[in-house]
Amino acid sequence: MSVQFAPTAAPSAYVERLRRAEQLNGSLLCVGLDPEPAKLPQSLRGLPAAEAALTFNRQIIEATCDLVAAYKPNLAFYEAMGPAGLETLRQTLALVPDGIITLGDAKRGDIDNTMRMYAQALFDVYGFQAATASPYLGKDAAQPFLDRRDRGVYFLCRTSNPGASDIVNLQVNGRPLFVEIAEQVQAWNDYGNAGLVVGATFPRELSLVREVCPDLPILLPGVGAQQGFLEESVRAGLDSTGGGLLLVAARQVLYASSGTDFPAAARRVAQDLRDRINRAR
Amino acid sequence: MSVQFAPTAAPSAYVERLRRAEQLNGSLLCVGLDPEPAKLPQSLRGLPAAEAALTFNRQIIEATCDLVAAYKPNLAFYEAMGPAGLETLRQTLALVPDGIITLGDAKRGDIDNTMRMYAQALFDVYGFQAATASPYLGKDAAQPFLDRRDRGVYFLCRTSNPGASDIVNLQVNGRPLFVEIAEQVQAWNDYGNAGLVVGATFPRELSLVREVCPDLPILLPGVGAQQGFLEESVRAGLDSTGGGLLLVAARQVLYASSGTDFPAAARRVAQDLRDRINRAR
Repeated sequence: MSVQFAPTAAPSAYVERLRRAEQLNGSLLCVGLDPEPAKLPQSLRGLPAAEAALTFNRQIIEATCDLVAAYKPNLAFYEAMGPAGLETLRQTLALVPDGIITLGDAKRGDIDNTMRMYAQALFDVYGFQAATASPYLGKDAAQPFLDRRDRGVYFLCRTSNPGASDIVNLQVNGRPLFVEIAEQVQAWNDYGNAGLVVGATFPRELSLVREVCPDLPILLPGVGAQQGFLEESVRAGLDSTGGGLLLVAARQVLYASSGTDFPAAARRVAQDLRDRINRAR
Repeated sequence: MSVQFAPTAAPSAYVERLRRAEQLNGSLLCVGLDPEPAKLPQSLRGLPAAEAALTFNRQIIEATCDLVAAYKPNLAFYEAMGPAGLETLRQTLALVPDGIITLGDAKRGDIDNTMRMYAQALFDVYGFQAATASPYLGKDAAQPFLDRRDRGVYFLCRTSNPGASDIVNLQVNGRPLFVEIAEQVQAWNDYGNAGLVVGATFPRELSLVREVCPDLPILLPGVGAQQGFLEESVRAGLDSTGGGLLLVAARQVLYASSGTDFPAAARRVAQDLRDRINRAR
């Protein structure tokens, strides 16, 4: 299978870092760090929200950091706590051991002048090694993220929610819009640091994306609470090196128990997911 | 011109609030409050970034609040300053006089569970009366914003940057994707609180959107620094009541002078824009 539309960029510092992270714990698992006040264990509910979230994140990270390749905080969960929540995000990121990818799930998309500010927030203020972004505004809007050559940028392609088909499955040039977008992102990838977000809820569509982009890193949400297809997704999503894929689980790991045993319960789920993924590789 | 795809929803509390705001100062002008440390007046540059931004915003609001219908902070500019920047955002919003719309330009787009968190951040933590959002993930993702029936939600349709055509001008069902999106948003508008973002840089495309959505509120960036077409855009963008349109200027107003006279200079530009818009109505 060959890429006809754009030469394959040399592996970027981000792709090399991703490969090392996947080897570190022998894992393609990415745990979403999305603390929801109403779902936290009973034992943490008396604390102020931002403090409870930090305590929760610390225990989740301690319990799972030898099982994952990456942690992916979604910024919405921190923003909902106000400015104190963003302090919690900063403190959470400081707890992630070296060698593990920190991925800021922000899905930002704005004009170039504004995207420079979002890049500053994600990559400088918080120090994320990768982030998600929206391709909706086109290449000039994506460029300020791509210009951060040592960081990874995963563009939304085929998201994991059922309603995603309203827009990205519309037919463009005789194929779904998400395939067109995958091809465009491939062409934007001058520095080898672009990737794609493709939901695990649609393994057949993931295969279509891999046909067009055999080597772009893929972030795959939806294997957990969203009931995606884990084994099928692993087989459809691996790149030619047998990696380049991060499978995301959040709620399934974080809220495996609402008791004081939540770290051990989270660990059991994370270990099971890592092992199931590895058996399917 | 008739809407064939969905019944016109009754005016929402937001649309009624928008109409009152447009009448308050006889203005369709929306000033973007996007403080960039490197562009602030010399006199403010010695202060910490978040403090300088608050002082700047206060003076801009004092100088222009009898000339505008709305203020639109873009969240990127506050996020780039870290958690302290979000405190500045909160304090800035407290300075906006009653009756003027506060519109959070955040362009958020994520799955429904996450969009509930973003809605909480924008509408509860910061108290915005309206926000921008991305339609890219489809209706189920948009629903948590639309469910906030007393708030306005402007979906990205045809943005003002040149590269926007990479995606939204792709042909779908024999017409550009942005027209398809306008039609979908019209169909999502069960509570009468949905609107569209259409750049002033493409007045012909604005006309296409107005044909499909004669009554949705429109947010029109790009008339200032981006060199959009003001008069053509006003004529193409008004709804059937002669309003329903907010024209955004940010850099052109904010950075009209780098001296200590910046509030007076901002006022002159804002007044000129308001009057030019009104002459074109």
